Amino acid sequence: MQRVLDYLRANEPRFLRELIAHASFPSVSAQPQKHRRDTLACADWLLKHSRALGLDARLVKTPGNPVLVAHTPRAKNSRKPRFLIYGHYDVQPPEPFELWKTKPFTPTLRGRSLFGRGTSDNKGQHFAHLKAVEAYLKTGTELPCDLTFVIEGEEEVGSEHLANFLKANRHELACDAVVISDTGIPDLKHPALTYSLRGIAALEIKLHGPARDLHSGIFGGSVDNPAMALAQLLAKMRDAKGRVTIPGFYDDVKPLSKLERAQAKKFPLNSEAYRKFLGVPQLFGERGFPPQEQRTARPTFEINGLTSGYQGAGSKTIVPSWASAKITMRLVPNQRPEKILRAAIAHLKTLCPPTVRLEVEAGHVGAPYFLAPEGRHVRAALRALKGAFGCEPILMREGGSIPIVNDFKRILGADTLLLGLALPDDNAHSPNEKFSLDCFTRGMQMSARLWPELAKA
Amino acid sequence: MQRVLDYLRANEPRFLRELIAHASFPSVSAQPQKHRRDTLACADWLLKHSRALGLDARLVKTPGNPVLVAHTPRAKNSRKPRFLIYGHYDVQPPEPFELWKTKPFTPTLRGRSLFGRGTSDNKGQHFAHLKAVEAYLKTGTELPCDLTFVIEGEEEVGSEHLANFLKANRHELACDAVVISDTGIPDLKHPALTYSLRGIAALEIKLHGPARDLHSGIFGGSVDNPAMALAQLLAKMRDAKGRVTIPGFYDDVKPLSKLERAQAKKFPLNSEAYRKFLGVPQLFGERGFPPQEQRTARPTFEINGLTSGYQGAGSKTIVPSWASAKITMRLVPNQRPEKILRAAIAHLKTLCPPTVRLEVEAGHVGAPYFLAPEGRHVRAALRALKGAFGCEPILMREGGSIPIVNDFKRILGADTLLLGLALPDDNAHSPNEKFSLDCFTRGMQMSARLWPELAKA
Repeated sequence: MQRVLDYLRANEPRFLRELIAHASFPSVSAQPQKHRRDTLACADWLLKHSRALGLDARLVKTPGNPVLVAHTPRAKNSRKPRFLIYGHYDVQPPEPFELWKTKPFTPTLRGRSLFGRGTSDNKGQHFAHLKAVEAYLKTGTELPCDLTFVIEGEEEVGSEHLANFLKANRHELACDAVVISDTGIPDLKHPALTYSLRGIAALEIKLHGPARDLHSGIFGGSVDNPAMALAQLLAKMRDAKGRVTIPGFYDDVKPLSKLERAQAKKFPLNSEAYRKFLGVPQLFGERGFPPQEQRTARPTFEINGLTSGYQGAGSKTIVPSWASAKITMRLVPNQRPEKILRAAIAHLKTLCPPTVRLEVEAGHVGAPYFLAPEGRHVRAALRALKGAFGCEPILMREGGSIPIVNDFKRILGADTLLLGLALPDDNAHSPNEKFSLDCFTRGMQMSARLWPELAKA
Repeated sequence: MQRVLDYLRANEPRFLRELIAHASFPSVSAQPQKHRRDTLACADWLLKHSRALGLDARLVKTPGNPVLVAHTPRAKNSRKPRFLIYGHYDVQPPEPFELWKTKPFTPTLRGRSLFGRGTSDNKGQHFAHLKAVEAYLKTGTELPCDLTFVIEGEEEVGSEHLANFLKANRHELACDAVVISDTGIPDLKHPALTYSLRGIAALEIKLHGPARDLHSGIFGGSVDNPAMALAQLLAKMRDAKGRVTIPGFYDDVKPLSKLERAQAKKFPLNSEAYRKFLGVPQLFGERGFPPQEQRTARPTFEINGLTSGYQGAGSKTIVPSWASAKITMRLVPNQRPEKILRAAIAHLKTLCPPTVRLEVEAGHVGAPYFLAPEGRHVRAALRALKGAFGCEPILMREGGSIPIVNDFKRILGADTLLLGLALPDDNAHSPNEKFSLDCFTRGMQMSARLWPELAKA
């Protein structure tokens, strides 16, 4: 192991140059007209790089961008544990260019940060794993497990073809667990494993009132106003304590265990700094839970958009014909999205007054994710984190959803260890994205330490 | 009087031809690039026509379209009562053309209806008054009052220059009352005088939450959602009985007198037919008042528009940065718009939670209008209506606002008699506008009978 770590330290400058080369490709999957060639070139570069490290690599075609599949050399009938490392080589669009202080595809070092689109999300993060594996291979250190890299090119556009790719290659990709570094940690003193994600259930409602917009002078007062009916309907969906009023909404919510609550308390969140960061006059959430739990471990009923009547300048004196709202509910273990969606729709129907007609359209759903934080793989990963970062790691939940994690579980039957290396100020999806060199070096060490820990777990 | 009525009957076919000529001008004030010349040509036609009748007429320039001022011949030091007849020669835009069954500016007779833009609103209506006066002048019948026609060309674009015109010519336009035929009657069996109009007070509110749209997964649950805060704020503005909750809102509402209530009951409104006409599943309004009172004699708090977050196709998982609503309140005698606006804003501020920042912008205001239905001019007008229509007229309130009525009161000190001739299916402001020849002939008779009645009142 020492040889591996020494190799990592000794070759840091070259690794940085290579990461700069990787992040120089404008592999913007959302802009195929402009960047399809760049995206394919990035995949090719990654293929050649993987082969040069000694990996058995190929690009697997999909109807979209190809997926890199790269195996460590594997003995015939190997009985070693197998792990899959997932990443993505596509990046978010760089726009708006005028807000960048450096050129987005000319990765630029400033202090201990490498600025450039994709440096943090996700090139720097999967590259740390590639370099750790390189260290094993180039120092002739036997890897205690068989590893497979799956690095796709469509994560930023919804990973449309990933599930089919996994299904088609399920035997080749069979593994004991998946490792993904594509989430974040609060700071360098709090390396973290994310063991739970929220799910989602979307719906759209539209209240139909009069057959057309009505003159509010001639008719107003004798007919319900759909915008008011919508306001009153939505208002009833959340009570004064911040609780969602849908009957049964909380029935399946798995309460935090002692371990989880203790871990949640370790998350460094300063309420006042957080409030300032969000720019709100006062924080608000479900009563009885601290902000960190509210945003990761509690379900929500969130209005994403409202539309009704006149929206231009000045005024238009109408009773609008209809009013609509876009809604998503964030769900937590063990809520079931379809069940919640049914309960929400039933509740809306019960509350809707007879003066308007309710139209509901159910949208997409995604299950919440939960990996028992007491599990052997989790404990192994925590040891690797501690070794690499030199301080006690925390277990955390995240509030967002990562649908591919459910795909890995459903198709490969594998749990996912989320071992993110991004910092909160990395500006993922924003101008001036950057990746911390400290996260890069500790990420490589973490990856190097991870495989022996997982193998013996 | 009989000679006057005989003249009107005998010349009906010619009057119709003249009205067709008048309504052939595309005098669309909202489309000056396209129709400025047509609008001026219409004013010129009206000038020549008025002079040919024997009126002392001229066009008064304004920064917009000219105003026709036409006096009946007046004896020096005349002590006759004076009345002002207001109308407008400009019309609404005809679009969308494809929905017209006839050409909008080729007035076409079908049965007893003349189809064409402006036939009802307002050319047919002021033309009825012009023809009644012609009958007096051409039969050598002495008019018992001095009359002045004021026919403007900017009513459909807000009468922007009317108030200044009235101020500049206040002495010449001094009168005992104003007569306007630009409102409606429920049907030919219910000729009506409108004695009250609702006023208006507009405002716009915007709730500011986070400094930017937030990822609803990462942050949702720990911060208030401005769209939900707006829904809950608006929901509180109207209670389950349909009453506006602003403290003091109803304090100055003048209750209906016995006479008014008896008159309101005579208004032919079939609730089920009305519901079907509006296309709503069920009517709704302030409890304890029938629909006709709700829409004319009761104040409202109406949401005209809602805007927040994402409004495109599909979903966007955000906590929106802000949410806004456009609001107008319809006010009734003797509510004072500025006072109500202040009370509304104070109430909103009281109700607004500390988790969002409230921005309120006060909009335009207009006072409600009330003419004592027991007054001598009103009684005189009712006698004229009864004589012309051959049945008992009703007194009615209308729910809309006609700002110029307040201008006449404020600048000339004159009350207005609203003696509309439009039927509910006249399609004013819509394709296939038409004017009923029955309303035209009865309107001319009503006008002929009005002047002796007003003179002796």
